[in-house]
Parts: sequence; C-alpha cells; structure tokens
Amino acid sequence: MLNLGGPAELTDVGPFLEELFADREIIQLPMQKWLGPFIARRRTPAVQRNYADIGGGSPLLEWTSLQGREMCLRLDELSPATAPHKPYVAFRYSEPSSEAALRQMAADGVERAVAFTQYPQFSCATTGSSLNELWRAARRLGLQDAFEWSVIDRWPTHELFLEAMTATVRQGLEAFDPAERDNVVLLFSAHSLPMSIVNRGDAYPLEVGATVHEVLKRLGGRYEHLLSYQSEVGPVPWLGPPTESVIEELGAKKRRHVLVVPIAFTSDHIETLHELDIEYGELAHKVGISGYRRAPALNDMPLFLDALAEIVAEHLRSGEACTSQYGLRCPGCVNPQCRNILRPVAPYRRTAVSPHPQNSRFGKGY
Amino acid sequence: MLNLGGPAELTDVGPFLEELFADREIIQLPMQKWLGPFIARRRTPAVQRNYADIGGGSPLLEWTSLQGREMCLRLDELSPATAPHKPYVAFRYSEPSSEAALRQMAADGVERAVAFTQYPQFSCATTGSSLNELWRAARRLGLQDAFEWSVIDRWPTHELFLEAMTATVRQGLEAFDPAERDNVVLLFSAHSLPMSIVNRGDAYPLEVGATVHEVLKRLGGRYEHLLSYQSEVGPVPWLGPPTESVIEELGAKKRRHVLVVPIAFTSDHIETLHELDIEYGELAHKVGISGYRRAPALNDMPLFLDALAEIVAEHLRSGEACTSQYGLRCPGCVNPQCRNILRPVAPYRRTAVSPHPQNSRFGKGY
Repeated sequence: MLNLGGPAELTDVGPFLEELFADREIIQLPMQKWLGPFIARRRTPAVQRNYADIGGGSPLLEWTSLQGREMCLRLDELSPATAPHKPYVAFRYSEPSSEAALRQMAADGVERAVAFTQYPQFSCATTGSSLNELWRAARRLGLQDAFEWSVIDRWPTHELFLEAMTATVRQGLEAFDPAERDNVVLLFSAHSLPMSIVNRGDAYPLEVGATVHEVLKRLGGRYEHLLSYQSEVGPVPWLGPPTESVIEELGAKKRRHVLVVPIAFTSDHIETLHELDIEYGELAHKVGISGYRRAPALNDMPLFLDALAEIVAEHLRSGEACTSQYGLRCPGCVNPQCRNILRPVAPYRRTAVSPHPQNSRFGKGY
Repeated sequence: MLNLGGPAELTDVGPFLEELFADREIIQLPMQKWLGPFIARRRTPAVQRNYADIGGGSPLLEWTSLQGREMCLRLDELSPATAPHKPYVAFRYSEPSSEAALRQMAADGVERAVAFTQYPQFSCATTGSSLNELWRAARRLGLQDAFEWSVIDRWPTHELFLEAMTATVRQGLEAFDPAERDNVVLLFSAHSLPMSIVNRGDAYPLEVGATVHEVLKRLGGRYEHLLSYQSEVGPVPWLGPPTESVIEELGAKKRRHVLVVPIAFTSDHIETLHELDIEYGELAHKVGISGYRRAPALNDMPLFLDALAEIVAEHLRSGEACTSQYGLRCPGCVNPQCRNILRPVAPYRRTAVSPHPQNSRFGKGY
C-alpha cells in the first residue's frame, strides 16, 4: 500500500520534509542537495506546530494499517484462490519505507506482490514517485528477483470508491440545515501539482476531474460546485485555482454555505485536519462563510474498505500487470526509471524513452 | 446558436482577428485598443494563408446553419407544444453577429428565445463571452425587453452528445488496420485556455475532463489516452500539455499510431482542418507517426443532430432559466457583466460580485 506518509511524531517532521524536498520526481530545485535540506529545515518549526495542533503526528499510518487489515480480511473471502493476503505499508517520505516493507515481505516468504497505490488518481508526482522508489529500494536490497509484481496504478472511477466518496459528501451535506442544503457550494479540493508536471502530460487533472464528475452525477447533478487545488509550496507555478483563494472569494461573493470535499485523499492527514479544518476553517469564518464544513475522509468507512478489497480482487482476476494506461509515459517524460515493473506477472506495453532532451515547449506553460 | 465564428472569406480574416484580440473576456493585453489591432494585423497574412489552404474560408457558418435547421425539424416533432422553432446563429467574432441575430429575431416577431451555446463545455472565454456580448448587443439595439430568455450554458456529458462523440472515435479507429487498432493512442485535444482563466476557477478543464472520461468509458476503458490543449497564442502561460508538443514527443517515443480527437468542437473549422490535419499532420509525419489520423468532427452526423434537438427539448421541458451551475461566478471573477440573463423565464440564483479588487493570488499560477 503505497502512500506519501507523514511524521508519526514531532521529531519525525524534519526527516519527513528532507525526504520530500529531496524527491526530484516531485520538484526540481537548483542545487537540490543543499537547497532541499535548507528549505526543509526552515519549514520544520511551522510544520511541527501544525502537527502539534492535530495531536502530535500524522494519523496516516494508523489509517493505512487499519485499511490494510480490513481489506485483507475481505480479500480472503472474495478471492480464496489467492489467499492468504497480507498488507504491507510503503510510505514515500516516512517510515515504514519501501525498504522496510520489502525486507518484511522477504522475511515473510512472500512470492507474489501487488503494488497498490493509495492515491486514487495517478500522478508521476505521487504514485509514479512511489513506484520508482519501490523498484530502486528492491534493487538496493538485492531483492529485485524476490517477488513477482503487478501494479494497481489508479482507480479514480472504481464504482465502490465512487459510492464511498459520494457517501462522504452526503454525510457532509447532512450536517447543514435542510433548508440551507440547496445553497451549499461543493468545493472539491485536491492536492495541487506544479504546472511543469501538468504541462508534460501528467494524467492527474483528467483523473481528478473524472472522480469529481462521477461523484456529482451520483448526487443528481444539482449542486453548484468548484474544483480547486490545495497545498502548493515553493516559488514555481502550480495548478489552480488555489483552495485558499477560492474560499476567500466565495466569502467575498456572499456565499455562506460551503462543503469542502477532499477528493484525492483517502485518509485524514495534515492536509485535511490542519489545512482544510483549521487554517481554511479560520479563513472561512473571517470572510463570512458561517456554514463551512468538510466532508469526512474515507478512513474506516466500511464501504471504502469493501472498495479496496474489490479493487484488488478485480485486479487479481484480470491477470494483468497494470492498467493499459500505466505504460504510456507522459509525453514530456525524460525519466528512464518511469513506468517500470520489476518481474511483472504478465507482459505489458511500455512507451519508449525519448532519445533527445526534454522538448523545450514542455514545462514553460505555453 | 452561439459560437466563435470564423471568416467566411479571406477578406474577412482581418476583421475577425481584430474582434478576437479586442475581447478582454478572453485575453487582456496592455493598451489593448492599440496592441489588439496591431497583433491582428501582424497575424492576418499567415492566417489568410491557412484559410486559403482549407478552401478560402471557415465552414463554421455552413455547419451551424445546417445543424440549426436539422435541430429545429427534430424539435418541432419532439416538442410540438413549443413549435415552431427557428434557429438563429450568433457568432462572437464574425457575421452573423449577436446584433444581426437579434435584429432578425425582432423582425420575425420572436417572443421566447433560448441562448444555446455550441461549446459543449463551459468557459468564460467562450460561452461566457458570447452570452455577455449577446446581452450587450440586445441593450445596444434597445431590445433588452423584446424576448424572454433562457440559457443552455453547457452540455459536456449529455448522453446523446457522448454517444455521437464516441461514434466519431470509433469511426476514427476503423480507419486503422485492425491489427494496429490496439496500439493506437487516443489524443483528445481541446482548445487551450490562458492559465489566468484556469486559475480564477473556470469550469472548462473539469468539464472537458468529464467529456473525455465518459467517451473513454463508452469505448470500454481500454485505450491508452492523453488529453492535450491546442491553439495557444501570445506570450502568456496557457494550460498544457500543448497538442503540438505531445505529437512531437509521441513520435520521439516511438508511438506510430495516434488518433487525434477534437473533444471541444462540434464542427470542422480552422483548428481541425488546418491545425490538426495539415500542420500537425506534417509534424506527425516528420517525427515518424506513420499512422496519424483525426476523428471526424460531428458536423452533420444524424446522432449529433438528434443530440442538439434533445438537449433543447429537455431544457424547454425543465422550465429552468439555466443550469444550477451558470449562476456560480468563477471565484476569481471581477466582471459584473458575467452570469447575466436578460428577462429570464424563471428565477435563478446568481452569486454576488466581489466588492474588492481581484484577489492577488488568482491568475499568478500559484
């Protein structure tokens, strides 16, 4: 189960940020080896305060562990032929890392493994980076031949996921006075992406849009809605509109009822509990949005646990190594590590690497 | 029937470009009154050559007129209670203009009018600009009280439109050798949008994504696909990836079969016949894409003509003035003209204008 990760305790914040700002698959800085740790150190105290506000650490490992356990209980029933199933967590920027997961898998005698992204929508900055790190970690540990792999690389419109996501929106709406419910603006918020990644052809905006559209459809298509992007950092252009500015402007434009829906996260973490709930909650209050609420995260919702199990069961039944989309490199991609699978269970088509340096028109934004 | 328009003859190219570069709802230039005509004059000869290549003028008026006639024939049967129906064309940057359409409507004694955008996906730069100009034109002519209005402001996922669009993709695929069909990359291409408009919260990227997603679903979800944006002009950042660069890179990455699908246009015009077919066709050939094809435009496809009629019939049955989404101003909007309807047939909710100047975080790209 691949995910971003998060510092379990306040002392883990520094190392977490250092790993994050060292990842050139998300953000490329000049002199990254020095500038990355510098930015990480400078941001650490503020981020530590944020984690202190939400109880002293990220709940992501607890949620992911619970989801893994519950998923495997269901999977053993859904797919007895492939049982027993066991979950391992591999976080990109905190423990348990890919190395930790792989070591444990080897110790347990695992032979067949599914790399299951916990990001519903694919991006090279999230799922892509996690997978590349997973294969590198396997090679570092000499475990490149230890397991047969397949990859669940995206599931933005899986039926049960959509039902679960729609249920969270309904729960959020129910917290409003029935007389006000039709005045609620649904503000779908996803983690933003640098425009340089959008412009090289990353699938993320399209897949986020697909999830939002399918959820709106299940709500009967009658709610006013917006899609915005949160959590941008650093001095490069990011995909907008920024969630923060949207909230500010909805207040200025006299909208009084807003339900924020985290559409690209499956568990509570700092971006929901602090950024959406505390920071933007205070902002909303300041700009006059008296009815500001957030739809609950999927966390331990039984329908979502069913979804996770069903996604894996369908994947195992298909016998495929990945989706037909995984092998299609981003048009602007120059990273030969991308779109790999170690010892895939089935052949898959992978688009070749471009022989020449990155097309200069990518990443400029026009 | 609102659309962009296009020069009917080569001598119309200059005035068409002048109108286009004068539209501050699409692009804001410093000293636009002087710089707009200057850019238009400088681009005129090249654009004239392009129109000469495709037969000396834009076919948009012919297609729109045919679509209007066929739509109304069907509508008279589908909705006899509101018959007779008569189509009028209002182009934004060429004749027949909004003024011409409104004058003819007044002469014909029309009482009830539907402003029907021919852009399936909503953007303030397209449908928004056309509607704002329509209301201004009515006021200029003293016809602000002449008609009762409703608005069909978007239809990105209308069932019949999706079926028609999917049929064009199937037709495009059938032109490939059956043995190669599974190797085809579907490249959905939409007109690009300045990032300043994306970042103020324009609905376009989400709605284009919804159309693409629904078409892919109807194709069984098995084709490798990309979404790219074409036709960016001028020195501001536009939403990418650019279609041209994507084609170049797909060639460099050894993909040999590409079907381009114009997903945000309903008729052939310069962007399909010249940009996609001629310019990018030559580029594709140069970079080794031996199987480069374009899905046909909807034009006079009977299923699409049915779709147009059905969209209007459903709208008339609803009794609504517009979709629930139309009144929701973009978060970054500062244009008080936006989201108007003259003498609406039914009340609709419109988000207030923000009292303070545009939030500085919008439009910067981050």
